[in-house]
This record gives sequence, C-alpha cells and structure tokens, in this order.
Amino acid sequence: MNTSTWRTEPGTGRRTGVWFVGARGSVATTATLGALAVAGGLDPGHGMVTGLPGFAGFAGIGLPGPDELVIGGHDVVAVPLAKRAEALADAGVVPLALVRALGAELNVVDARLRQPDPFPGAPQQLAVEQIVADLREFAVREGCDRVVVVNVASTEAPYETDERHGDLAVLRAALARGPGVLPTSSLYAYAAFDAGCSFVDFTPGAGVRAIPALVQLAEKRGLPWAGSDGKTGETLVRSALTAMFGSRALRVRSWAGVNLLGGGDGASLADPAARSSKTASKRRGLAAGLGYDVDAPLHIDYVPDMGEWKTAWDHVSFDGFLGTAMSLQFTWQGCDSALAAPLVLDLARLVARAQETGGAGPLGELGFFFKDPAGSDEHRLAAQFETLLSWARTLDGPTR
Amino acid sequence: MNTSTWRTEPGTGRRTGVWFVGARGSVATTATLGALAVAGGLDPGHGMVTGLPGFAGFAGIGLPGPDELVIGGHDVVAVPLAKRAEALADAGVVPLALVRALGAELNVVDARLRQPDPFPGAPQQLAVEQIVADLREFAVREGCDRVVVVNVASTEAPYETDERHGDLAVLRAALARGPGVLPTSSLYAYAAFDAGCSFVDFTPGAGVRAIPALVQLAEKRGLPWAGSDGKTGETLVRSALTAMFGSRALRVRSWAGVNLLGGGDGASLADPAARSSKTASKRRGLAAGLGYDVDAPLHIDYVPDMGEWKTAWDHVSFDGFLGTAMSLQFTWQGCDSALAAPLVLDLARLVARAQETGGAGPLGELGFFFKDPAGSDEHRLAAQFETLLSWARTLDGPTR
Amino acid sequence: MNTSTWRTEPGTGRRTGVWFVGARGSVATTATLGALAVAGGLDPGHGMVTGLPGFAGFAGIGLPGPDELVIGGHDVVAVPLAKRAEALADAGVVPLALVRALGAELNVVDARLRQPDPFPGAPQQLAVEQIVADLREFAVREGCDRVVVVNVASTEAPYETDERHGDLAVLRAALARGPGVLPTSSLYAYAAFDAGCSFVDFTPGAGVRAIPALVQLAEKRGLPWAGSDGKTGETLVRSALTAMFGSRALRVRSWAGVNLLGGGDGASLADPAARSSKTASKRRGLAAGLGYDVDAPLHIDYVPDMGEWKTAWDHVSFDGFLGTAMSLQFTWQGCDSALAAPLVLDLARLVARAQETGGAGPLGELGFFFKDPAGSDEHRLAAQFETLLSWARTLDGPTR
Amino acid sequence: MNTSTWRTEPGTGRRTGVWFVGARGSVATTATLGALAVAGGLDPGHGMVTGLPGFAGFAGIGLPGPDELVIGGHDVVAVPLAKRAEALADAGVVPLALVRALGAELNVVDARLRQPDPFPGAPQQLAVEQIVADLREFAVREGCDRVVVVNVASTEAPYETDERHGDLAVLRAALARGPGVLPTSSLYAYAAFDAGCSFVDFTPGAGVRAIPALVQLAEKRGLPWAGSDGKTGETLVRSALTAMFGSRALRVRSWAGVNLLGGGDGASLADPAARSSKTASKRRGLAAGLGYDVDAPLHIDYVPDMGEWKTAWDHVSFDGFLGTAMSLQFTWQGCDSALAAPLVLDLARLVARAQETGGAGPLGELGFFFKDPAGSDEHRLAAQFETLLSWARTLDGPTR
Repeated sequence: MNTSTWRTEPGTGRRTGVWFVGARGSVATTATLGALAVAGGLDPGHGMVTGLPGFAGFAGIGLPGPDELVIGGHDVVAVPLAKRAEALADAGVVPLALVRALGAELNVVDARLRQPDPFPGAPQQLAVEQIVADLREFAVREGCDRVVVVNVASTEAPYETDERHGDLAVLRAALARGPGVLPTSSLYAYAAFDAGCSFVDFTPGAGVRAIPALVQLAEKRGLPWAGSDGKTGETLVRSALTAMFGSRALRVRSWAGVNLLGGGDGASLADPAARSSKTASKRRGLAAGLGYDVDAPLHIDYVPDMGEWKTAWDHVSFDGFLGTAMSLQFTWQGCDSALAAPLVLDLARLVARAQETGGAGPLGELGFFFKDPAGSDEHRLAAQFETLLSWARTLDGPTR
Repeated sequence: MNTSTWRTEPGTGRRTGVWFVGARGSVATTATLGALAVAGGLDPGHGMVTGLPGFAGFAGIGLPGPDELVIGGHDVVAVPLAKRAEALADAGVVPLALVRALGAELNVVDARLRQPDPFPGAPQQLAVEQIVADLREFAVREGCDRVVVVNVASTEAPYETDERHGDLAVLRAALARGPGVLPTSSLYAYAAFDAGCSFVDFTPGAGVRAIPALVQLAEKRGLPWAGSDGKTGETLVRSALTAMFGSRALRVRSWAGVNLLGGGDGASLADPAARSSKTASKRRGLAAGLGYDVDAPLHIDYVPDMGEWKTAWDHVSFDGFLGTAMSLQFTWQGCDSALAAPLVLDLARLVARAQETGGAGPLGELGFFFKDPAGSDEHRLAAQFETLLSWARTLDGPTR
Repeated sequence: MNTSTWRTEPGTGRRTGVWFVGARGSVATTATLGALAVAGGLDPGHGMVTGLPGFAGFAGIGLPGPDELVIGGHDVVAVPLAKRAEALADAGVVPLALVRALGAELNVVDARLRQPDPFPGAPQQLAVEQIVADLREFAVREGCDRVVVVNVASTEAPYETDERHGDLAVLRAALARGPGVLPTSSLYAYAAFDAGCSFVDFTPGAGVRAIPALVQLAEKRGLPWAGSDGKTGETLVRSALTAMFGSRALRVRSWAGVNLLGGGDGASLADPAARSSKTASKRRGLAAGLGYDVDAPLHIDYVPDMGEWKTAWDHVSFDGFLGTAMSLQFTWQGCDSALAAPLVLDLARLVARAQETGGAGPLGELGFFFKDPAGSDEHRLAAQFETLLSWARTLDGPTR
Repeated sequence: MNTSTWRTEPGTGRRTGVWFVGARGSVATTATLGALAVAGGLDPGHGMVTGLPGFAGFAGIGLPGPDELVIGGHDVVAVPLAKRAEALADAGVVPLALVRALGAELNVVDARLRQPDPFPGAPQQLAVEQIVADLREFAVREGCDRVVVVNVASTEAPYETDERHGDLAVLRAALARGPGVLPTSSLYAYAAFDAGCSFVDFTPGAGVRAIPALVQLAEKRGLPWAGSDGKTGETLVRSALTAMFGSRALRVRSWAGVNLLGGGDGASLADPAARSSKTASKRRGLAAGLGYDVDAPLHIDYVPDMGEWKTAWDHVSFDGFLGTAMSLQFTWQGCDSALAAPLVLDLARLVARAQETGGAGPLGELGFFFKDPAGSDEHRLAAQFETLLSWARTLDGPTR
C-alpha cells in the first residue's frame, strides 16, 4: 500500500477535534475509517483535495495532519462503529482489510460517541446545553485546541423560518421557552457556536444559512462556518460541464437529470419534502453555472437495491453554430459515502485552520466543496478551485 | 431572429482576409455561411467564443468584425459553394432558410475560390509560387490589410520528417529541386508565410509544427501561427473532465473512447494512417490533462450512415476514497462542422489581430481551441480559457 | 427511391376508409403522408409490419392495399394538412421532398376532414349523431365498403367510470339526457360502433375498454376493436428485454425509466393526470412481462426543445448467478410520430380485414402493437409477434 | 437464503460427471461453487435456465439434479480451487459467505482435478491417451454413468485447418506421428469422444466444429456435442434486439460495439488473433439475426482495472418510417463468469440427458446458449428459446 504524502510534513503539534453530527452514518463512518487509514499510512487518501499527491497548494500552510485529527460525535443510533464499517465493507464501499486492520482504532473513536437525550416537549435550550456540555467535555478530555462540528446527518425537509429566527435575542428567548424552535441541523450549529466551535453544513438542511440569527451568532463569536450540501457526484460533473458550455458559447437548451439512490440517503430522500430540499439546491447551481434558466426536470428516486451506490443520468441538449441542435449525456455511477468522506476531512482541516488564523463568518472560498455555496455566487468548478488555492495560501499566517 | 452582439461595436475600418485551404469542405462552407449570417444580423453566432453574448472579454480589443472578414480559399473540387451549403442543410447541419437568404453572398465568395494546379512530377516550388500568387492577388483585389490562411482540409497521415525539413535553406533547395518534399498542409503554411500571411492549423497533419524549417520561417518573418487540431467534441469534454478529476484528487484508472463518424472526415479517417494522427493527438491531451498515463483504448470508426454527425462514447473508471472503484460514461452527439466553424472564425479574428499587434511564432495562448496545442503544455480547459482571456486583453494595443 | 413491395400483390378491388380522430395531429399527418407515399411507390414503408419486405406472413390474406385506403377524419383545429406536413418536415420527422411531391394528394385528403361542432351544454347524443353522420357521408361519398376509426388524438386523463357506463341501455339514456357522460375517445368509439365501423384505440384514454357498455355495444354489433396505447419506443424495447431476462432466469431487481418528450404529446403529458394514464400503462406491461413486481420509478418530462423527438433512458439492475448484481442501461432516441404512423396503417389494414372476415370484440391477437393490450395478457414481444402471424393466416378466408 | 426449486424433483438416481477443461478458471470455479451452493440449498440459482423458478419446461424430463453432478477437470495451473474462489469473492464475483460455507466441498472437487503433462515435441496421441485415461479413471472412481466434457479454457486464436483435419483416419495417423496437429480445444474434444463422453464448446476456438474429422468421430460414436462460444452479455442483448428490429420492420443502418474487458479473458483477448476469433463470432450472429449486412465496427479492449467485469456499449442507428433516422444505445455492465457459469451447468445437464436419450451430433436446439450455434441458423433469442423448450420436452423418454 502507498503511504500518505501527509506524513512528509512536520506536524502542527496541536490536536484538532472533529465532531460529527450523524457519527455512525455512512459518510461519517467512512470518513473516520479513512482518517485512521491515512494517519496510519495504510491508504494514500485519493479523493482528499488537501492531500493532492505532489501538489504544493496545501502543504506548509499549517493544516492539522490526519494523525492530529481526533474524531467524536453524536448519533441517535448506537450500532458500534466497527459493525457499521463492516456493513460498508459488505456493500463494497470500503475495503474489508482496512476495517479489520483498524478495529481497535475504531473502538477508540466509538467510545467518544454520544447519543443525544430526546427531551420530549421540553424547551430546546436543554438540548443545546447538553450538546455544548458534550463538546466541551470532548475538547478537554482529548486535549483539542479547536473543534469543528460537521453535520453529516440525513437530509432535512425545507424549513419555514419565522420572526423567531431573524434576531439572536429573540431566538434565545424562544429556545428557553419551548420545543420545536430550530431544526436539528440548526440546533447543532447554535450549540457549536455557543461552545466556540466552527461548523460545516455538509447535508442539505436549514443549518446556519437559513437562520439569520445563527449567521449573527457566528459573526459575533468570530467563528467561521462553511456550507452547504456537499458536491459529490452529479453536481460535480455538472459544475465542470456548465463551465465548458459557457466558455465555448454553446447555448444549453435543456438539462434533464435523474438520480437513482439506494442506502440511507435514498431512504430519507424518498420523503418528497426532503427531496425538494435537494433538488432545489441542485437547480440553483445549474442556473448559476450557466448564467440563465433552462428547462431542467430533475428526479431523485429511491431504489433500495442500489445499496450505498448512486447512478445519475443527465441529458443536455444544446445549440451549436447557427442553431444546430446537439446533445451530451452522462451516466455517473458512484458511491456517495466514498466521495463525500474525503471532502469532509478536507473541510475539517481547512475550517479548523481558518479558525486558527482568524477567519469568521461564511467561508465562500470553500464553494468548491458545495452544491449551494454559502458566501459565494461562483458555481464553475475550475474557478472555485482557483479561489480555493488562492485562499489556502492566505492560511500561512500565525496561529491565534 | 436575434441579431449579433458584434454590431454594437464600432468597426476597425480594415478588411481582413480569411483564406481557407479546403474552402468547399463542410467546415469551411459552414464557417462561410455563418460569417455571412452573423455579419448580416441573421444569426446570433452561438458557439463563437469571441462573440460571447454579454461578455466583455473580447470587446474593445480591435478584433475585425464579421462584416470585415473577406473569405476566399483553395479547394481541389469545384462544386459551387451554394450547392455545398444546400447539401449541408439537407444533412441538418445548417438551416435551409439561411442558405436561401444568403445565396447571392455565397456566390460572391465562390467567385474568389481557386483550384490549385496539380504540377505532377514538377518541383514543389511551382505549387508554392502559385499559392503565393493567389494569396497576393486576393489581398490586393479585396483590399485586405492582412490575410489569415486557415487549413480546414482533410486529416493527413502522420508524416516522417528528414534532414530536408530541419533547416530553412535546405528546405528551399529541396523544394526547388523536386516534388514530394512537403505534405499539403505544410506546403500551404510555407506559401502563407512567404506571402506574409499568418496561419492556422485546424486539421491534424504536419502543418507548421512538424517541420522545424517552417517554425524558423515564421519566426524570421515575424508571423504568428496557431495549431493544431481543433478541439470540437469528445476532446472538449475530456479536457473539462480531466480537470475535474484532477482538482478532486480522484485517480483515473482507465479512459476508453470510441468515435463513430460519418461524412467527409469519417471517410478520410477510415485510412488507418490518418486515423493514427488523430488518435495520437487525442491521447497526448488525455495524459497531459491528467498528469499521468492510464489505459486509454481509443477507436475511430467510419460509419457512413451517420452523415455529418458524430457520436462519441467515453468510459472512465476511477478510484474514490480508499480505492472504491467508480465510473463515468458520456455520449456526445454532435455535428463536427457546426462545432468547428465558429472556432475557425474565432481563430481567424484572433490571429489576424495578433499579427496586427506584433505577435509572432506559435500562439500557445490559443491552446483553448486545440486538441494538441502548439506552444503550450496546458490541457485543462478552464485554465486554457483563463489564459485566452488574459492574452486577449493584451491585444488592446496599437496596430502595426 | 425504392418502390413498395405492396404493389406486387393484386388489389382487393375494395376501398377501405380510415377515419382519424385527431386527423391533423403529428401521428395522423405522418400516417397520411406515408400511406400516400407508399401507394405512389415513393417510399418502401419501413416500419410497417404488414409490409415486411420479403416476408410472406401478410401477403395473400386479403389486406387492403395502400392505394385502397381512403383517409378522412375529425380534428378540432383547421390548419391545412399540407402545412402540418411542412412543419413536420422542418422538424426532421418526414422528408421535405415527399411533402412537396404529394401536395395535391394531401389537399384531397384535407377536403375530407371535418371539424366537430362543440355543442356546449347539450346532451352528448347530439355530438354522437354528428360523428355518425360524418362517418356515413364519408363512406358513401368515397365508396368505402368499410371504415376503421382510429383514435390518434392526445392522451386523455384517467377516467372514473360510474353506474352510467356499466350497461348499454343506461348509457344511451344518459347520453340523451346531458353532457359530460363519455370522454372524447369513448364518444368516438360509441359513434363508430353505431355507424358500423371498427375502432382502434391508439392513444391512452378510456376508449372502449374502460367502458363496459361500449364493450357490449361492439359485441352486439359484431364489430372488432383493438387497443390500447400504441407501443412505439421505450416500451417496445422493454418488451424485448423483459423476455430476454425471463428466458435467461436473470432476476430483475429494479427498472427505472425517464422519458423526455417535446412536441404535442409532451405538452399534453405535462398535465399530471394525463401522464399518470401513460405511466400506469407502461408499468402494467413491465410487471406482466417480467411476471413479478419490481421497483420501477418512471418519469415523463415535457422538454419543449426536443420538438417531435423523444429520448428515453432506462436503467435495469439484475442479479446474475449467486446474487451478483449487474446492470443494463439503454437510451432510445426516436421520433414518436415516425414510429407510430406505420403501426397505425398496419392496424387499419388488419382491423378492416378482421371486420371483413367476421372478427368481433377485442382483437387480443394485435397485442404486438400495444403497450396495454386489450384481450390479451401476453407482453413478451416475440410471443406477441408469433401470435400475430398465426392470426394473420386465419384472415385468408372469404369476405363477408 | 432461498432454496433451490430443484430439490422438489425426485433424483434420477444416477451420477453425472462434468469435466471442465480449464477447471480452475473463473468460469469453472464459479460454476463449481454455484453447483455446490444450489445442491446444498444455499442459493436459488438465478441465471440457470433449467432451474427457472415455477417453470415446468425443464421439470420431469430426467435432467440430473445439481446434487447428482460430480465435477472434475483439467487445468494447467495448480492454484487450489478454494483460493481461486476467494479471489473471485474479493473481486465481487461470488459471495464470500458461500466460499466459506463450501470450503470442504471445494476441496473435494479440488482433489479430482488433474494437471495435464506437457509432452513437448511428442506425438499428440500421447496427450490424447492421458486425457482419456484421466476421464475413464474419473468416471469409474466417482461412479458416473456419463461424463460431459466442457471446454471453458481461454479463447483460442483462429485455426487454419488442412488436409489432416478432413478425415478421421488421416487425423489419427497424424496424431500418432507428431505434435501440433490439433489445437487444445479440439484435442480435448477428440479425447472426450474417444472416451465415450459428450462435449460442450463454451469458449471460442476450433473445438469440434472447425475439424470435420471430429464431427465424423462424434457421429460415428453416437455422441452429442454443443457449441460454440457461450452467449453471455452483449450478444445476448443483441439477439433480443435484432429480433425486435426485425419484427417491427425497422431497418438497421449501422450497429457499432465496443467491449471493455479486464480479467483473464480480457488478457487472452489482448492477443489480436484470439480477439479476431471472438469478433468474427459476434459479427456472424448480428448479420444472421438481422437478415442483412450492416456497417458493424466492433472492438474488444483489454482494460486490466475492470477486473472480472465487462462493460459493453452498443450504438444502433436505424430508419423508422419514411427514412427518419433514429438510434438506440445500450451499456451492459456484467460479470462474465457469473453469467457464464449457470449456462455451463445448464448445458452439462442438457447434453448429459441428450446423451442418455440417444442424441448424437451437433445439438442445434441448444443454439439459445451460443453466440455462434453449431447445427442451427437461428439467431433470434426468443425463437431459440421456443426451440429449446420444444426439444426439452422430447428428452422425456427412456434412458439408454
């Protein structure tokens, strides 16, 4: 096996916490196994942008090494992490050999995971306090200088905000009064900021950006956050191709897509409301990438027999010179967890380092990683990558 | 019909000649019809990069307007241009309405076309002299300040160079002595430079770059040239996707492709030697774009029933995180002439302007347009586009 | 141009009327043009099953020749047929040369077309009487021994039947009383049977089969009918492939499909209710063909820029030996009118001949032509074809 | 796990030997594991035509049950079967759980496998005698009434026959004289017939059919044989679709195909000579299925990273009514061993039973299983299946 290129860099000498919301899900389990594998020199970490082999862009800028990431998290279920990893190996997502080699390390992480209490009917402030306490205890016990909270729980249904969400003081009062004020993703963001942690919105949902009061809170605490909706498959290809059509002045006339998903995300997306969160995010990116609206029917189907795998088919019709109609089709067959996990580690490293060097508010420069980037209007992949590289160079400053 | 955005710019007040080698072929006929249509405000010119709607990058830098392009050329066949255009309309390449509306204008261009004499067995210097004479007569009669010669003839077989091609003086002597010294594409390049014209290698073949003596000649005369092998379809998509895989650190394991071509280019590519020119050019781009070699079987098949259309299928297999194998397939269905023609007009405008502002030698900054760019090692589409835009801004200088 | 193989057969000496409901639509216009072209020896009639070149199955069984078909019909719009045919030529559906060559013949058909009166708020019996009168007048004036009414109007929304539809006498009374008793397709079937005509349900809708009283009426009058929903594209491929999976004992696990439609049918299918008629018909066929239910998400999208063309993508996942998962994808790119039109002519010929030889009730033997065959449970294409051939041989009897 | 439907039939009370040439290859290993799994009730045997669930066609006709098949064979390599099965499990071809559950049974089969001696430079008669001796010893020791020899070794290069192959007596003399008279596949067929065994040509190669003397030998001994080149993937789909185009009178204009193969077969097909055997076999089927020749470029590429998997892409262009051009593409992603193995078991059962009931010579009725059927000109899949079913019913006779 190849060893990671990371090991050639000197360590930062600091421990960085990564706290997963949905820590026993497919994405978090794969990310955890992968971080351990790369740290242990058992895998080269393909798919991790910040580990690009032979690529100087992310070296020497003070990113925490994989062996300096300490993983913990919350999950509502209690299945041991090693068992989850075995199930992923059965499904072809991760190699069984790695799961076996890293059983003990997985158990160490497992011991750090917490199940949140439900608090039915109680003010949501109670749940916030528990999360904050868990985060603080984790940081202290593990000796982490900083903790990045990463939401990799299931896709949420779209959320209707109201007057309680527009102002931080009003929000605090509402949380103290009763339940149902914030959706889960936002509740975790609130608690993260309260505990002095930075935050990554990897799953579609309200998160930080839909709640103005949370945007204010991050600003007030001087904490960075990034989102939203990790760009892993179909949308990744779309963002490469929209730029191609754009730079060649080829007029796209329609762009249809269908996604067949099995697994956990497929099941949660079988709910039409959750699905509409995801399709809305995809559509915004397409129109933004092209610079104009096109007919763009888009379907997400839950097909259980596909397991952890996803197949997407896109059909693009476009005009060449003098109105001649042409088409491009693509079929993407990927494993979402194996695509998402390395990006989650990239984001944890980059956001932690941004926090160290004084970054605050939405990190639009991380739009490269997201379907629906907060803090940026750019959707062309290559332009996003250039922005990321330029920004990464600014991280080479003193640590706060 | 939309009118062109070009008309909003003031003209340069100069006439620029565009001389096609293969002037009655599908690409040249489509380009001629399109130039007339855009000049006449009958078509918006989708697919022309220098005419990008609402895009400031190519405005105000002194490019000749479409109504300032004067088209002429050589061809071995004598079918009238209007008849060729009708055949293309039957094949669905161009709209019949445009062919009808522009019949008179096509006849004006037709009157400027010349058939080269064959000179069997004679020294090639004779052919050179005829081409030079035709170019000079064209420039004078049409009042063109500058002429760009664009090779859009059929793909040539790979060419073995020898000691006659390494030095300009030796080459001149060989041309004076006998036949068979230079392949057609290079003969035209030689004559173009001799006549003070710039040159574009749009079709795969020896052209300028394979003949060191021609590179010297361009340098000596201070003339710019660009090439080679226009990037119209499958390779365009490849260059957008290789950058995507690269920036996401996804390791490509194999990249197979098959091209089904009808029409004129398909027939000339049915010749295995010509085909190997084209596949070699495609392969170089793939390895260069990825930065490493992969298994990349590539086929070009001549399928007459596809007419002027081309279908390409590519299958890419790649590794995600922890070695998980995934795949991407795409099917491209395009009309090569309708894709190539606007690029040919872009190149004529840009190379003419480069010549005006003192450019000389291979214009690597035009790599965006080519499968196998002369003067550049960059194969990632978005990076090529950025380079093109930066370079275009430098054209905003005084005219020589 | 090839001449038809039909002309080698002696004629029947009888004229057969074909009355299209939706006579100016894309399918009817293409069928009309095609019948004239084949009759005139201008086209070989590819796609017509009963004209299979060199195939004896349909020769010598007394089918009316193409020159013995007399076309008429109803349509709510009044655009001249020749104009409709020109629009179809512009869209690439039919050759412009044929439209020009057959202008006079199209005008002859045009003169036979009628616009139905609307009768707002009146008992539907009035509309029935008008249709019957039009059919009788047509038969008499054109000297047709028999008339087949073929519904090629737009897809209808699913229809809820009630107690008025279960019995012929009750239905008659209801029609005499008021409006809104029968949907258009059924109203035409009713009128056809009343006028002694046979009937073909080519478009999804209530037609004959959803209305028990109409089934009784056909039986009572001894008239044959066939339906429903012509099998032209995606479902045709499906019915060939389901049999393949079945005979190889390969267990299909899921079968997803998406249809991108422009044109008239696409627009009418943009209505969710009409669409659900069509998807239900497709789904029934899949389950029947496989012999078991599978996950089968199916989408129909209206994409106007596709014009008269349709693209369907299907993804089938299946188990090989020992549970190994595999997949098959296909992309079908077809022109529905050009696929449907020859089948419409086949059906007119076959149903007319069935009527002559005494056939009555649903002709299950014509299931080969339909997505959702009335009178048959067989959905495997090859088995349907064998049945069709056997049945055709029985038509070689005396004419009633 | 489901249990096999086979177990519901009473056994024949006889043991039938299956002798694989290439017994440690992917196909034979998968077939062996599968036979054991089905016999043990651990797998339902999807993909086995003779085990079609709920299908009466192959019940009650005296086929040997899976628990009555005794597997042996030759291979030039000596890797233990259980180890080969584990490698196939790693490659995703078979479930690891089955390999583990059947380790002991695999070792029992392993003990029956033989490595042939090389006999360099010696008369081939020596090799024949060894094979015959191995077959006889196997039959006696295992108490098999009959043995079917099945060639599942690698694809052979095309073989030029000469005057030694045209007559049995001449062939015998040549074998006695020296080496190099017969290619491996034919040598095994010769030995099989000499030992009183029936023979199945599952891999492309000379086998029985290319050698007239072997056809004579089978006839003389009254032994049945079947071939050639198992129809597992792309050709299977082709044979379903050619019939579809045929019965719909849709004129195919071109049919292009590309096959990307990893694994053992891919490597052997990297040899252009072997590849040409396979492409020739595929092409014959296409022309035969359509009934006319079309442009049909076909490529087979060896792409090592695909492992045991195969991806085939086919592009069919065809004419609808009035010459309107349309297309169908399909992508097949399958595992050849998992597709071939159940057919191998089907063939062993059917050929053994044919031998019992007096069948001799080429069994054209088994064309359903082959790309290039010996003894039959039928290539339409559904027609082949009907033939198979009819023939199977004739096996319900007394055992010789």
